[in-house]
Amino acid sequence: MRNATDPARMTASEAAGLIATGKMSCEELVRACLDRIASRDTAVKAWLWLEPDQVVRRARELDKLGPKGPLHGLPFGVKDVIDTAEFPTTQNSPIYDGLRVGRDAACVGVVRGNGALILGKTDTVEFASGGRKALTRNPYNAAHTPGGSSSGSGAAVGDYQVPLAFGTQTGGSHIRPASFNGIYGIKPTWGLVSREGARMSSMTLDTVGWYGRCVEDLILVGTAYRIAEDATPVSVKGLRVGLCKSPAWHAIEAGGEQALATAAARLEDAGAIVEELVLPEPFNGLIEAQNIIVNAEGASSFLPEYTNAYGILAPDLRAKVENAIGTTPEQLVAAYSLADSCRPVFDSLFGPTLDVILTPSSPGEAPVGLHTTGNAIFNRMWTLLHVPNVGIPACFGPAGLPVGVTLVGKRYSDARLMAIAKAVAPVIDTFAAERERRLFA
Amino acid sequence: MRNATDPARMTASEAAGLIATGKMSCEELVRACLDRIASRDTAVKAWLWLEPDQVVRRARELDKLGPKGPLHGLPFGVKDVIDTAEFPTTQNSPIYDGLRVGRDAACVGVVRGNGALILGKTDTVEFASGGRKALTRNPYNAAHTPGGSSSGSGAAVGDYQVPLAFGTQTGGSHIRPASFNGIYGIKPTWGLVSREGARMSSMTLDTVGWYGRCVEDLILVGTAYRIAEDATPVSVKGLRVGLCKSPAWHAIEAGGEQALATAAARLEDAGAIVEELVLPEPFNGLIEAQNIIVNAEGASSFLPEYTNAYGILAPDLRAKVENAIGTTPEQLVAAYSLADSCRPVFDSLFGPTLDVILTPSSPGEAPVGLHTTGNAIFNRMWTLLHVPNVGIPACFGPAGLPVGVTLVGKRYSDARLMAIAKAVAPVIDTFAAERERRLFA
Repeated sequence: MRNATDPARMTASEAAGLIATGKMSCEELVRACLDRIASRDTAVKAWLWLEPDQVVRRARELDKLGPKGPLHGLPFGVKDVIDTAEFPTTQNSPIYDGLRVGRDAACVGVVRGNGALILGKTDTVEFASGGRKALTRNPYNAAHTPGGSSSGSGAAVGDYQVPLAFGTQTGGSHIRPASFNGIYGIKPTWGLVSREGARMSSMTLDTVGWYGRCVEDLILVGTAYRIAEDATPVSVKGLRVGLCKSPAWHAIEAGGEQALATAAARLEDAGAIVEELVLPEPFNGLIEAQNIIVNAEGASSFLPEYTNAYGILAPDLRAKVENAIGTTPEQLVAAYSLADSCRPVFDSLFGPTLDVILTPSSPGEAPVGLHTTGNAIFNRMWTLLHVPNVGIPACFGPAGLPVGVTLVGKRYSDARLMAIAKAVAPVIDTFAAERERRLFA
Repeated sequence: MRNATDPARMTASEAAGLIATGKMSCEELVRACLDRIASRDTAVKAWLWLEPDQVVRRARELDKLGPKGPLHGLPFGVKDVIDTAEFPTTQNSPIYDGLRVGRDAACVGVVRGNGALILGKTDTVEFASGGRKALTRNPYNAAHTPGGSSSGSGAAVGDYQVPLAFGTQTGGSHIRPASFNGIYGIKPTWGLVSREGARMSSMTLDTVGWYGRCVEDLILVGTAYRIAEDATPVSVKGLRVGLCKSPAWHAIEAGGEQALATAAARLEDAGAIVEELVLPEPFNGLIEAQNIIVNAEGASSFLPEYTNAYGILAPDLRAKVENAIGTTPEQLVAAYSLADSCRPVFDSLFGPTLDVILTPSSPGEAPVGLHTTGNAIFNRMWTLLHVPNVGIPACFGPAGLPVGVTLVGKRYSDARLMAIAKAVAPVIDTFAAERERRLFA
């Protein structure tokens, strides 16, 4: 066992195996995570709420109870727009400072029922939507953003502070931080994992996802949601990969181009059949449609804060309530209709000539500064299409920061997509050991 | 002022006028509601949680503060699947007995910010979805159901216990109880009122609505959500009404047929042009599509309880998690696609030859017994189409219970639909005084 000396360096799957066979306790694992956090929190600032004594007590309880499910004792970070029974949920907003709801969000309840240990709440863009940014920094270079809005979850998993964490995505809030922090992430098909108890910003777009440091860990969590069972063997040799530069290609940067080219070349070297895939013309309108929908649906989502806390609601969120961009009902209906008509067309692309799509996760590496979380332009279309995405690390870019790529499947093919990701990840991601070396240097 | 001697008999609009001009206090109004509840609760059983002392204190605070908004001092009942800051939210489930989340659902926060007084929590079908029924009885005849799942909210408004209340609808849970309790109800266009903090059962279908005892009251509340302003005059004379028996007509009963015929005849007498409208053939599949979607989306919605409280989760909700009806991804996608394709077709029906659709609210009167809440078959299609509905009382049926009809508009025409409803309600609903007389006999 490579990392047996430091449980914090283990993947969730490795740790689960040791816990299940009695070779490691839940307490040992969580103490290792807490030690890592203690040594790194000043630099990374991933956590909004952490009660070390309480989580150690809970780990001891889990050790006494014995295995409750396949996630027994595995620590999860939870983006602070997602409710947890034991911690406050502030949404990184002064409006909800210290608020404890005493009830788990659906996604949290499911993993807790499978034995997971909720470690703490991670920093986030306010409401996962606008207003305040997280204070979190990129674990590879504190001058850079970790991405967002799932800033703390992405950085905490990337920095080996916790093996698993929840994020949410409305535009590119989940898959982009996976790219910037050198980790794996899944955004499942819309509706397959309940988003109840995660702050609502857009009914049509909001999706809960999770991060891990390998595909096996994404699958392990997916099993709890009953969306990860696919026993059909996947061979990279002969795998039909559609290379989709996407309608956002004009925004690509050197790091993103390098990541996509690297992943494609490695897949071809391993025997995959990689061919460029150009989506039908109507898909070019989806990025703007996503913008129309997220703004229009935000009007009702943020009306409660607009009504009760106008003075401390961020101007960009007030603007949604006021429909500052002036969307008409006709424009909104057209945006919905475009997405509605593209979804089945997209699904129909898959078949004998296409197994999976490979596309950028972000324009490039994480940009400098904490005033931005980067550009979601490569993620927004997929979110609107409701299709599953898996983010996989591909390479270090020119600035020495990690960059990832995204695998995309059709709706409800999550289990198949994860099985494909498990097969191609060792081919694409050849620099995991180097990531670990840099972060523990 | 007809009802000046008993504030509980006033509409919300009447009460708001008296409070605004200092002729009545918030305390007087809420005490009248509490008195009515005290005298009737044994018979009707509408409330799951009520703290009279606390709400009187809050009413006094509102009297001291002075007007905070157009809903100042108006009492609201809240279906117990909707979160409120001060009361428990049990969802009528033993799993959440006594749970207080300390945070308002979005719909509650908006009315509270406009001065509303949250009176208490109303009984509901468990999770608004399955399992336990409410204990609530029909205010006109205790041997009959008040409908559901918004059982307590419908009965409490119908019985003059509270002027306004929130319900939710996934199939027919809001408009059907309006019909059975002789009251007005609106189910707005999907997405126009945030459903956050109302128990999720189906992402695509769940919609929050409210009840009142006249259209003016629905509009008053709608103003708080910014969806009710339409100053264009509406004349019943010349109004183009499409009489839609709907694909569910095979389920119609004597009371429902009488209600629809009565409403149509009165509108024609008043100069409206009423013509039968048969929806295009694909619409015949929408009722089954709604069934497929509510079952499939329920799988993720109820997985937390399935995981953590299997033994006390109702068998019909376990069946959703287990996909007992065996829906395939292809069937689910086909159901979504059918709805997606019908929505714009439906919207396009409106124009010079069609102002509004008139359709049944329920098969007929409330059935006997509390083991059923009646049949949602006349509501399910409209819920799936995401279109606004306004329920209007039409007549007493053969069993002496009220029956209503539904007005339907296109998406985002809520303000226009309420304006039309305001014009046609006095024409259709000629038995309001008789309803009041019976309930106060």
